[in-house]
Amino acid sequence: MKDFIFHSPTKIIFGRGRNREIGRELAKDGISRVLMVYGMGSIKRNGVYDEVTGSLKESGIEFRELSGIKPNPVLSKVYEGIKMGKEMDAQAVLGVGGGSVIDSAKAIAAGIPYDGDVWDFYSGKNPEKSLPIYAILTISATGSEMNGNSVITKEETMEKRGMHGGVISTPRVSIIDPSVQFSLPKEQTVYGAIDAITHVAEFYFNGSKELNFPDRLCESLIRTIMDSVDILLKNPEDYHARAELAWSATMALNGMTAVGRGRGDWASHQIEHALSALYDIAHGAGLAIVLPAWLEYTMDVNEDKIIQLGERVFGVKERAPKVIEMLRETYRKWGAPVYLSDAGIPASDIEKIAENKSIRYPTGYAKKLYKEDVVEILRIASGER
Amino acid sequence: MKDFIFHSPTKIIFGRGRNREIGRELAKDGISRVLMVYGMGSIKRNGVYDEVTGSLKESGIEFRELSGIKPNPVLSKVYEGIKMGKEMDAQAVLGVGGGSVIDSAKAIAAGIPYDGDVWDFYSGKNPEKSLPIYAILTISATGSEMNGNSVITKEETMEKRGMHGGVISTPRVSIIDPSVQFSLPKEQTVYGAIDAITHVAEFYFNGSKELNFPDRLCESLIRTIMDSVDILLKNPEDYHARAELAWSATMALNGMTAVGRGRGDWASHQIEHALSALYDIAHGAGLAIVLPAWLEYTMDVNEDKIIQLGERVFGVKERAPKVIEMLRETYRKWGAPVYLSDAGIPASDIEKIAENKSIRYPTGYAKKLYKEDVVEILRIASGER
Repeated sequence: MKDFIFHSPTKIIFGRGRNREIGRELAKDGISRVLMVYGMGSIKRNGVYDEVTGSLKESGIEFRELSGIKPNPVLSKVYEGIKMGKEMDAQAVLGVGGGSVIDSAKAIAAGIPYDGDVWDFYSGKNPEKSLPIYAILTISATGSEMNGNSVITKEETMEKRGMHGGVISTPRVSIIDPSVQFSLPKEQTVYGAIDAITHVAEFYFNGSKELNFPDRLCESLIRTIMDSVDILLKNPEDYHARAELAWSATMALNGMTAVGRGRGDWASHQIEHALSALYDIAHGAGLAIVLPAWLEYTMDVNEDKIIQLGERVFGVKERAPKVIEMLRETYRKWGAPVYLSDAGIPASDIEKIAENKSIRYPTGYAKKLYKEDVVEILRIASGER
Repeated sequence: MKDFIFHSPTKIIFGRGRNREIGRELAKDGISRVLMVYGMGSIKRNGVYDEVTGSLKESGIEFRELSGIKPNPVLSKVYEGIKMGKEMDAQAVLGVGGGSVIDSAKAIAAGIPYDGDVWDFYSGKNPEKSLPIYAILTISATGSEMNGNSVITKEETMEKRGMHGGVISTPRVSIIDPSVQFSLPKEQTVYGAIDAITHVAEFYFNGSKELNFPDRLCESLIRTIMDSVDILLKNPEDYHARAELAWSATMALNGMTAVGRGRGDWASHQIEHALSALYDIAHGAGLAIVLPAWLEYTMDVNEDKIIQLGERVFGVKERAPKVIEMLRETYRKWGAPVYLSDAGIPASDIEKIAENKSIRYPTGYAKKLYKEDVVEILRIASGER
């Protein structure tokens, strides 16, 4: 096991109807003015907006609202939030939504006490302070509710970049009510799950060897996520499956899967960012295409681990290519694309994708990849090789 | 999955030679005067004392030392620490040792800012404040390095009681260097491991049904602990096995195994506390005797789970009694007692043990137990039934 620092201080409040506790949590922390950030209005349809604003009012918390955060959240919206937060002298930022909303809340919270341009924190500088961040999670996928990461896109240059604020940008309290996800469209459940599986995979397949508990943890998460999706595709209102999926997605990227391994690989994520920068494709859909192709290409470093995944997650003793095919089969069964052509992306675009600046060469950790490697991975992903 | 709150804010610093970082961690938190608490001097033999005091001096941290904390730590020593801490106006308490030392550090840290008798917190009252607690772990067993629990014995009445201070009594930073455990006597490694396995079991066998990830997490921990002990009995200086065991023991009682289950059972622990109150027996040795007997007696509520443990941990499809026997075989192989007679405790003492006030009736959560139930469990533990 490699050395590590694990520090995941978020207080997670988990269960049905718990969103109503947010006002009390803020009040307990001495917060009386909060900037509330949310998305395109689904929280008004599923009742979460009423629960949260009702709770804030009950606890006497003054709040202003910034709505309209979109998937692949943009910097201009972050600037708008920083301006609002400064005007109202906000003491905290509350994100109510999925990863895009919580990521935006983190950016705004880091930007308010900072005199420079918040984009600095997405260009390599680490924030030294931040307003406290609170989150109400409405879709399980990114794990943003229990880590310090945030991904924001700068529109002018279409750069999609990350801030890694560590503890400073980690939500102080996150509330997860799995039942608010009953009404999610099927694709969002599936793509959220694939995102979470890929987060686990970025660590599991980072080239680490001879790990006992850390491997079993990852396998337990992947198995649980797969079982949960199978149940939810039949019954989207199965509370227990929603809860298992939600907690597993949180655990997938709260630092626990990194323990003893060193850093994650992240090449698959970067390659996917190039796809979603260029095409109208959901992040989880892009990952369903990229991860299996990346596994095929990097098989020399991960072969044993892929076989182990086959044994412990799929319950079969098979060679690595067969296990990768089983992963594709799983994603296909869920209705996700597994080849570029499934998503209408032509193989003739491969060069262009590999040249997109979302990929910073050399990428990857298990195996260092250059442009020609990514071209090969995309060729595998095209299904033509 | 049941509702839960998970909040485990300890910063864990894990790896070889990391004890030297303690001074910097304290300084970073603005602490310049600390009360250092340790045990019977093993830290002077294994080099930890020099590492820690060297680091404190280097960072300019003023410190006083309270040594002589014994296994089953006592209240009189805690009072001594509180007095020292008040005299020196300590800003934090640093425990350097195993569970007894860290538990004592928690008691002292809660007692210093409190005007009343610290025993109040071991009699049902929760502390409202505490000095910050820091820990350097030297034996993996109790999990005290990442939770808010503390068990102290009041000598006059031989009461062994717990404080559950939650986040307030949870170490702010804990450093775990698995290599300092190379020199532990074999029995301490084994009994620490059995303590950790039993912590997992208290939750795994709490009567919870239909859990996916939470069960797999527990099974992964038990499997890893068992594998690690097998390796360490052959080579006590196997760093990776020490590290896997250390992290698993921490994870066994940091709140993670409780997620989705409600409270732990804890009957086995209470029965064991009666044993170690009356006889000179190590906690882990007592648990090796009690847990299998408790499992046999409560089989009606845990049968499916025991069979599942057999499949997923021992890799066999067997009936529950056979799986319990495999657990006993494992402990026996490690040199632990599995029946009262192995520890020289006569069956004629059963009534007396069941009447010891360490057991607060009714005890248990999976199954509520009264004195006559505990008598039956002890009869099973005597090997005579």
